[in-house]
Amino acid sequence: MRLPQGFRYASVYAGIRKIEKDDLALIVSDTPAAAAAVFTQNRVVAPPVVLARENLRVSRGKACAILVNAGNANCATRTGDRVALATVRAAAKALGVKPEYVLPASTGVIGVEMDGGKIATALPALVAGLDAGKFNEVAAAIMTTDTVRKTAFAEIKSGRRIAQIAGMTKGSGMIQPNMATTLGFVVTDAAVSPAVLRSVLKRAIARSYNRITVDGDTSTNDTVAMLANGASGMEPAAKVFEAALTDVLESLAQQIARDGEGAKKLVTISVEGAVTEAGAETIARTIANSPLVKTAIAGSDPNWGRILCAAGNAGVKFDPRRVDIDMQGTPVCRGGLAADFSEDQLKTKLGERDCYIRFAIQGSGQGRARFWTCDFTEDYIRINASYRT
Amino acid sequence: MRLPQGFRYASVYAGIRKIEKDDLALIVSDTPAAAAAVFTQNRVVAPPVVLARENLRVSRGKACAILVNAGNANCATRTGDRVALATVRAAAKALGVKPEYVLPASTGVIGVEMDGGKIATALPALVAGLDAGKFNEVAAAIMTTDTVRKTAFAEIKSGRRIAQIAGMTKGSGMIQPNMATTLGFVVTDAAVSPAVLRSVLKRAIARSYNRITVDGDTSTNDTVAMLANGASGMEPAAKVFEAALTDVLESLAQQIARDGEGAKKLVTISVEGAVTEAGAETIARTIANSPLVKTAIAGSDPNWGRILCAAGNAGVKFDPRRVDIDMQGTPVCRGGLAADFSEDQLKTKLGERDCYIRFAIQGSGQGRARFWTCDFTEDYIRINASYRT
Repeated sequence: MRLPQGFRYASVYAGIRKIEKDDLALIVSDTPAAAAAVFTQNRVVAPPVVLARENLRVSRGKACAILVNAGNANCATRTGDRVALATVRAAAKALGVKPEYVLPASTGVIGVEMDGGKIATALPALVAGLDAGKFNEVAAAIMTTDTVRKTAFAEIKSGRRIAQIAGMTKGSGMIQPNMATTLGFVVTDAAVSPAVLRSVLKRAIARSYNRITVDGDTSTNDTVAMLANGASGMEPAAKVFEAALTDVLESLAQQIARDGEGAKKLVTISVEGAVTEAGAETIARTIANSPLVKTAIAGSDPNWGRILCAAGNAGVKFDPRRVDIDMQGTPVCRGGLAADFSEDQLKTKLGERDCYIRFAIQGSGQGRARFWTCDFTEDYIRINASYRT
Repeated sequence: MRLPQGFRYASVYAGIRKIEKDDLALIVSDTPAAAAAVFTQNRVVAPPVVLARENLRVSRGKACAILVNAGNANCATRTGDRVALATVRAAAKALGVKPEYVLPASTGVIGVEMDGGKIATALPALVAGLDAGKFNEVAAAIMTTDTVRKTAFAEIKSGRRIAQIAGMTKGSGMIQPNMATTLGFVVTDAAVSPAVLRSVLKRAIARSYNRITVDGDTSTNDTVAMLANGASGMEPAAKVFEAALTDVLESLAQQIARDGEGAKKLVTISVEGAVTEAGAETIARTIANSPLVKTAIAGSDPNWGRILCAAGNAGVKFDPRRVDIDMQGTPVCRGGLAADFSEDQLKTKLGERDCYIRFAIQGSGQGRARFWTCDFTEDYIRINASYRT
């Protein structure tokens, strides 16, 4: 897979995190790119989110660079607004572009003052290090409690022209996207207008990032930003572009759920037969957020009663006597009652790294949705009881 | 504290649970009592809940007995309706009362057929064992993953007359009441009409059972039932009665939260300054359900950023710059920013069995609510990864 043309990447250690691991990164388009982003719906919004939204408004959906740091969320601090603005201005100056063409993003601890001086000091080395091949280095620099780097790629063909989409993301805890979660950056050399980019990104996010949960918490800094610089010279049909982008975002979202803090398993929940897609999504989300379901999966316990109980709490009408549940393809519940299955065989199957729950309401409802989560293990507690210390 | 007059209690081991510990219990009023109950709002409702609601309708708010078993929820099974009806009829016959005067309740695993024959076989010994002093034995018989027996008492005086209220409850996991959770039984010898009992119970539940959470899951069998037999000859003023009942239910609810599966600490969350009480309750509930807040409490980590972030996800409008947060009486956040506090000292204080979080929005909002939850420890996972096996 080739990377999109016309982008360069760089990362350095600026001293923001305690451990010496790159914590400041830059993604640059050689020409002003169409840009769109989706942000957290949390009422508490970090200054970099506020500034990125403002910059997109002022630039009318154009950007040249994404400046991102890990180790500090730059949220709920006295100097947050000033630090975000100063670092964006410094980066813009170093790159020779307008300040509104730089989109800031931050991730890390909330409520600790961020030292903007560290970023200013690190910027020359960062800009000097820009390189078309360093995509993976940036993907590594944005990680916090993530245990693996998360990237996804797609190729779009139109006649003899080819465009690429490349995405990276981070996130492992405080994960239940609402519009977007954590950080995700996608670049493409397809030619797409800002307006089309905005609407396509929004729809693709709704079926990818907005359908995962690790622990039901939406962070204050969630941002998925996208740059389309048109360097391939190819302008894809909106539908083709949306399908490819959805694939990339779905892959990134699944990678987040699989790498959920302490998780051993990726759980795919498929709900069918609801009256509406929204109803199916709500049922799937409620199952995905149930600690009782998630601990049962951790224990490889085919406890379908907890799945039925969780679905009953979703606030969506359905007749329990019409519910069929499958786990790993094995029928465990038919018409709301226990199916005849081998508990021992299914326990073994549930030991695999990928678990599938199918929740189907018999009848004519056409509403269906897929949702992704992870199992809930003792390690989640261990990681989060001492994150700051 | 004396028990209310005119009630008798009994419990036996009927062989429903795997371990030999009383699992079938009876609470009997010597005369038909005014009766009221609140039930789960889960869409999946267990047959004993359906039957208890129906019996209260037919009897117009009267009952003589509560028949309860632990070890099996009698939910999502082929024979659930039949078993519930047959056991209620058998108990009514043994007690010499109308079937609609017996309220059934069940708790335990979902989706496993319940053997009604075991209850029928055990009934003669159960009825023969009825005794005015065995209140605590019944409170023990209804326990499942509970580690302590949960009871609460109140006395109401009116002139020279005295009436008693005695309550018992169980519950440790699958706890986020919506109208009621788990099982709770309250008896009183005050004279209260069924209509007053219904309205007072509903209001008292709203500020007690409906304000606790362990893991955000509402069970299929939740029931709080109350009998008032008037044996004291005293008819309390409704306000006095409601205040005493609220005290009893608040104590029972707090005992459930403190005994949450794997919990080491009871966490009291107090929200002030919201526009409405409902808004305050929603913010408190969202903080109480945040795994990130609950794991921080488990680790004695004064991570107020997670509290602010959780509140921001409640869907209630507030200005983050007006938020003050205290933990254990120590200011940790003022005006949405870090307060100056000793992290080490507060860590020590957070090691206590009772933790207090105060979330206050500065301004003139009069909406306030208290909410109770527990910390989230590795033991919750351990207990729930292998509940059935």
